[in-house]
Amino acid sequence: MKKFVLIPDSFKGTMSSTEICETLESVIRKHFSDAEIVSIPVADGGEGSVDCFLTALSGEKVEMSVKGPFLDDTSAYYGLIDEGKTAVIEMAAAAGLPLVEDRKNPKKTTTYGVGELILNAANQGVEKIVVGLGGSSTNDGGCGAAAAAGVKFYNAAGESFVPAGATLKDIERISLEGLEKTIKNVKIVTMCDIDNPMYGAHGAAHVFGPQKGADSEMVLELDAGVKHLAEVIKRDLGMDLAEMPGTGAAGAMGAGMVAFFNSELQMGIETVLDTVDFENIISDADYIFTGEGKIDSQSLRGKVVIGVAKRAKKQNKPVIVIAGGADENLEEAYENGVTSIFTINRLPEPLEISRHKSKENLEATADNILRLLR
Amino acid sequence: MKKFVLIPDSFKGTMSSTEICETLESVIRKHFSDAEIVSIPVADGGEGSVDCFLTALSGEKVEMSVKGPFLDDTSAYYGLIDEGKTAVIEMAAAAGLPLVEDRKNPKKTTTYGVGELILNAANQGVEKIVVGLGGSSTNDGGCGAAAAAGVKFYNAAGESFVPAGATLKDIERISLEGLEKTIKNVKIVTMCDIDNPMYGAHGAAHVFGPQKGADSEMVLELDAGVKHLAEVIKRDLGMDLAEMPGTGAAGAMGAGMVAFFNSELQMGIETVLDTVDFENIISDADYIFTGEGKIDSQSLRGKVVIGVAKRAKKQNKPVIVIAGGADENLEEAYENGVTSIFTINRLPEPLEISRHKSKENLEATADNILRLLR
Repeated sequence: MKKFVLIPDSFKGTMSSTEICETLESVIRKHFSDAEIVSIPVADGGEGSVDCFLTALSGEKVEMSVKGPFLDDTSAYYGLIDEGKTAVIEMAAAAGLPLVEDRKNPKKTTTYGVGELILNAANQGVEKIVVGLGGSSTNDGGCGAAAAAGVKFYNAAGESFVPAGATLKDIERISLEGLEKTIKNVKIVTMCDIDNPMYGAHGAAHVFGPQKGADSEMVLELDAGVKHLAEVIKRDLGMDLAEMPGTGAAGAMGAGMVAFFNSELQMGIETVLDTVDFENIISDADYIFTGEGKIDSQSLRGKVVIGVAKRAKKQNKPVIVIAGGADENLEEAYENGVTSIFTINRLPEPLEISRHKSKENLEATADNILRLLR
Repeated sequence: MKKFVLIPDSFKGTMSSTEICETLESVIRKHFSDAEIVSIPVADGGEGSVDCFLTALSGEKVEMSVKGPFLDDTSAYYGLIDEGKTAVIEMAAAAGLPLVEDRKNPKKTTTYGVGELILNAANQGVEKIVVGLGGSSTNDGGCGAAAAAGVKFYNAAGESFVPAGATLKDIERISLEGLEKTIKNVKIVTMCDIDNPMYGAHGAAHVFGPQKGADSEMVLELDAGVKHLAEVIKRDLGMDLAEMPGTGAAGAMGAGMVAFFNSELQMGIETVLDTVDFENIISDADYIFTGEGKIDSQSLRGKVVIGVAKRAKKQNKPVIVIAGGADENLEEAYENGVTSIFTINRLPEPLEISRHKSKENLEATADNILRLLR
């Protein structure tokens, strides 16, 4: 009996990693009907990340009511995996763009509900919490989430308040004293695939503000707020996060996770591989399938394929990559443990045409690889 | 030590079968430095066919002077393989379009020199002669070649003459009595991949006349000549060839090969497989690589890939197909012995772009297949 481990990234814009896993599974079953197949659809921390972990590992989904982006009651969820020892949270569940619909306003939206999810998970007695960033409607530097967990933000009048995008500038002092003890005792890891700094031209407000509804004037206001937050964090908490890669992710939630939750920021794939205990899963595997939309020299830096290959290489496991496209000069991929890279373009066609038959093309390509392996 | 057999068709318009073999060879050497590699670049009978056989098998090229398309002296050649027991001839060497350059005139051009090549080979004592059709400048129904071999064509005045396109209509009687004995004792096989009848809308003159320089008036004249030839062949030789598939090939040379040389017409790939003794070559092979420009349900009828696969299947040898493109619904290919079909499109690009990097794409695709086999 053969064991296959499927751990693809999504093909951005054409297929989700879950769809890819399902397609590969059905093709594998055709040729190896009794195969053991472990599917790990890779998520980048955004919407769907919790479901990806729950697909890969047995676990349960915890639903609860939290404060939404406008502090209205909203239903959110997180996942419990690893026999309840690990919680997986996607911030989009409590502060995502889809929750605000046509009321986008990053001056007012808050990550408060994300903090409630974190606190609830911590109170369940988990040892580790994974927080996925991405798809957020907020620009509050994670202050809302921190407030929900007991962190205090004071204004000039000495009053405690919950800062949002527009009121970051009013923070005079930050105190971690009130942070819930259960949170202090949990290891928190934040999944974050982007490396933007907190503020400035490449910061949270300038790069991601517009898609959250900020016009150019609001972008400047939000950016100034985050800059102010960085300064207070530096002064009160002794952490200089301004230029740390990833702190600008999700409306500077990256910074908040580091400053208030003592979290590390990690590439999504590394978090996934750690969380699912990848080394153990592949120890008796015969083939590992991974893939991404396009593999090129840039995607070799820290992305899914290479992350997977590096770990598989230590156990000499064959890593078969299926990609929507592949550039030349991928020697680095092979050196890092990739066995072969196959592309799904069955006909010489431009993406405008082929994107509509990605599933069929993936199916045909996988089918022919499996015929060769059989 | 692994043994690879490479037997691709050309990728029409982008790579010759010889180029494909060379590319695959260099990639195989990269991964299996001590591999035994047998290259059989498949020819369709046209220009280059002799060289293809000489690449696949050890042998020698015999050069000789013959009458060219306009009965001028020209240098031509054929190949001797199989320890001198088989001769391989391509009609293009003595009657090809490149030999007439800007003097195209299928009313006048003759296959006489092809007959000289056949006769010379027969006189060497070969047991078998393979004649490749294709790339001809003629429309003489093979009468020129037959005349060179001793067949007599008589006009109304009872005079013997060498009919060309314009004078086929003057044939009153055909006699095979003078046909050289050495030719009668040789098995002659004609490679012919097209299935046109002798004359009519799908016949030699209508379909291929224009590319040989015939205007619409000349096409009608040539067509009438071939029709007349068919009638005389039927009456004098008792063979009804008008509708036999392939008799319209190469200016009705297909018909002439059957009528005057007692040859059979055979799909090129079958001739190649027989001639190289494919069953023997693959008996100790580990992998067989074949391919064609585009594999689709139409190309499954008698073409290279299926011809190769059918024979490999009897010995349970894996057949890996590399193609420029592949349609869906190729179940028939797998049923007939194809193991896997890989396509070379590394990026989603239209043929106008990808055709310029066929070699690189083929190289990358083969490289990744071999990495998997290794």
